[in-house]
Amino acid sequence: MKPFSEMTKDELKVLRKELKVKYHEFQDKNLQLNMSRGKPCSEQLDLSMGMMDVLNSECDLRSDDGSDCRNYGVLEGLPEAKQLISDMMEVSPEQVIIYGNSSLNVMYDQISRSFTHGVMGNTPWCKLDKVKWLCVVPGYDRHFGITEFFGFELINIPMLPDGPDMDMVEMYVNNDPEVKGIWCVPKYSNPTGNSYSAEVVDRFAHLKPAAPDFRIYWDNAYSIHHLYDNDHDFVPEILNACKKAGNPDIVYKFSSTSKITFPGSGIAAIAASHNNLDDIRKQLKVQTIGHDKVNQLRHVRFFGDIKGMNEHMRKHADILRPKFEAVEEILERELGGLGIGSWTKPKGGYFISFTGMDGTAKRIVARCKKCGVTMTDAGATYPYHKDPHDSNIRIAPSFPSLEELKKAAEIFALSARITTIDVMLENME
Amino acid sequence: MKPFSEMTKDELKVLRKELKVKYHEFQDKNLQLNMSRGKPCSEQLDLSMGMMDVLNSECDLRSDDGSDCRNYGVLEGLPEAKQLISDMMEVSPEQVIIYGNSSLNVMYDQISRSFTHGVMGNTPWCKLDKVKWLCVVPGYDRHFGITEFFGFELINIPMLPDGPDMDMVEMYVNNDPEVKGIWCVPKYSNPTGNSYSAEVVDRFAHLKPAAPDFRIYWDNAYSIHHLYDNDHDFVPEILNACKKAGNPDIVYKFSSTSKITFPGSGIAAIAASHNNLDDIRKQLKVQTIGHDKVNQLRHVRFFGDIKGMNEHMRKHADILRPKFEAVEEILERELGGLGIGSWTKPKGGYFISFTGMDGTAKRIVARCKKCGVTMTDAGATYPYHKDPHDSNIRIAPSFPSLEELKKAAEIFALSARITTIDVMLENME
Repeated sequence: MKPFSEMTKDELKVLRKELKVKYHEFQDKNLQLNMSRGKPCSEQLDLSMGMMDVLNSECDLRSDDGSDCRNYGVLEGLPEAKQLISDMMEVSPEQVIIYGNSSLNVMYDQISRSFTHGVMGNTPWCKLDKVKWLCVVPGYDRHFGITEFFGFELINIPMLPDGPDMDMVEMYVNNDPEVKGIWCVPKYSNPTGNSYSAEVVDRFAHLKPAAPDFRIYWDNAYSIHHLYDNDHDFVPEILNACKKAGNPDIVYKFSSTSKITFPGSGIAAIAASHNNLDDIRKQLKVQTIGHDKVNQLRHVRFFGDIKGMNEHMRKHADILRPKFEAVEEILERELGGLGIGSWTKPKGGYFISFTGMDGTAKRIVARCKKCGVTMTDAGATYPYHKDPHDSNIRIAPSFPSLEELKKAAEIFALSARITTIDVMLENME
Repeated sequence: MKPFSEMTKDELKVLRKELKVKYHEFQDKNLQLNMSRGKPCSEQLDLSMGMMDVLNSECDLRSDDGSDCRNYGVLEGLPEAKQLISDMMEVSPEQVIIYGNSSLNVMYDQISRSFTHGVMGNTPWCKLDKVKWLCVVPGYDRHFGITEFFGFELINIPMLPDGPDMDMVEMYVNNDPEVKGIWCVPKYSNPTGNSYSAEVVDRFAHLKPAAPDFRIYWDNAYSIHHLYDNDHDFVPEILNACKKAGNPDIVYKFSSTSKITFPGSGIAAIAASHNNLDDIRKQLKVQTIGHDKVNQLRHVRFFGDIKGMNEHMRKHADILRPKFEAVEEILERELGGLGIGSWTKPKGGYFISFTGMDGTAKRIVARCKKCGVTMTDAGATYPYHKDPHDSNIRIAPSFPSLEELKKAAEIFALSARITTIDVMLENME
């Protein structure tokens, strides 16, 4: 089929009619499909069921250092948990503090503390007239939600194939002292699936922030979440890069086991410089007596070490890979060559990002909905839920079964074609 | 032996000499004993080891409502966990939000949110010149630590045998709009072990705060932590009392299973009015995707219901009761009738509170330390660690073995006598 842009008005109308017949056939099936959220599917969760067996009433629940994991204490995490998580985060155990079950909560707390008490002795942000925050777009809605909740002014930074538009990042960070942070998902980014290049990481490390309390919020959510065994994206380690660049304190790195074991019952952590960790400790010791050490122990005993964790991730990949490939195949088959949209082909992570014609995203999502397919709301990948081009849609292939996913992807592709013709015809009026 | 106040200087000197001989005998034993923190002992923790068996890889980890506890979601807690915890908190499930592992963290977050975003539409506290906070003293050091961290002005309210000095509470709360909160441990209070009377609860419920965003922080940490089977303290339920008094929004109630199952691996919760919970939800949904549902399920499956939990608490009591009785016996035997100090005889909770002569507490604790007995720092039970009389010492009998505890209590009583004589003789100079 030729590109839509080369079709006449009448050809488009004929095609629309044909496509609508197919659409109504799907509609008659009363489907209920969901490609909206980055949740692991049931088979993925089954992979971690063994974690329910590693601790039982016969076990010694003491840490390697002798602490009884059943009692109070050990604010920063068990030594063996620090080892495992720091290996996962590509840093050393001294650079890590283990938290509770949610890295989002760690990020929220980090911003909340900066707001109430300031960063390393700087003025608390609540005392400032304005705080600005850079948001790589499209990006993760819950990141943007936190900074919106605190009333910051959110600034869009386009995500390019190799990372954020660094000219723009440097322009803001190096000149405007009101810019206090940037949200980054450096590896298998949410939602594009792209990873930051070594050059981008290097430019991050060499930022010269106008604000002494500017921090990069480096959410390495998908650090070991590869889809292919021998074809990984590689992102240089940011703490090390910043240290080498003479900027050791400029970054906080976050991670968790949410999409490794059980979301909601995993372990989250922050990695940062010595100075930053000291700053964090001052608050953390007031906020809590300690996090769930039994669960830390459970993770350590289940995985053994990072090799065990990587082995486990291969099993996740075996479940996820066919799903990503199915969506990509269907999009290629149904939309390839039409010139009406592009999509990413990630090597890891949880999302495929679709970019259609301007002004089509909301209508495609609405059309999917009417056919029983729930997509992430159009606009959700932008601050304030406002996609300036109304063109980006996040596709989450992990949760549905392969069979359901294929149907959902077909309906999505169909909705994209019909909507695009609608918009093209309207533009011709 | 007659009261010290009736002894002559010479009699005191002779007695001191005798006591010091005993003291040095203890010192020669190079003991390492600890009566400082309210931690359960190992035997208590053993009571909950069965909790490690209730979930295994053969179990269905779905909630009663069908949600897969292994995945994201269910922000406010599983229905069955809400039932269990609300029964424990003497409220209904709709009045409860389940959190993570630490009620201290819930309280911190509650204050932090009031500081950053305000309480139910009122001005965020960070925008105010001053926030004042009432602290019932002696009280819980970690409570005071949170409000100190936020820079509030902490005001001492004396703890009387039946609860806080309510004349003083009413005077502050009903007249000063800068007073935004009060820390309370209403049942088996930390550290006195006393409980608030029905009249005190009623007066709390009928407060007429000058500040619309004043809240009672009602930390019901020891709600079912009785020492005696048939002799419980009874504290009227505060949410209900406030509602009846036409003040439904005036209180937040906190609790956790920290001293029921495993501290650090338990469940914490808040109970509050519909309006307050709505206010909390607005923030909570930004802060996290959800808490650890697998651990909620583990608790529910272990206890079954509140009856199971109460049965479990009887086993805790069987371990703790002899320890409390041993300390009380030794204090009575060694200090009874001397007129140099008084101590509480709680029917539940984790602490005994000792009040000596003014100006003796720090020196008693230091003298214990030199003999190998670690006590909670004198002053720790007061804001800013400043006991204006330097007379209160918190005794925590739970953690040491009974044998160790007896030695520690003897050394404490000995140190109290020697120090008191020291101070009396100095005062006679």
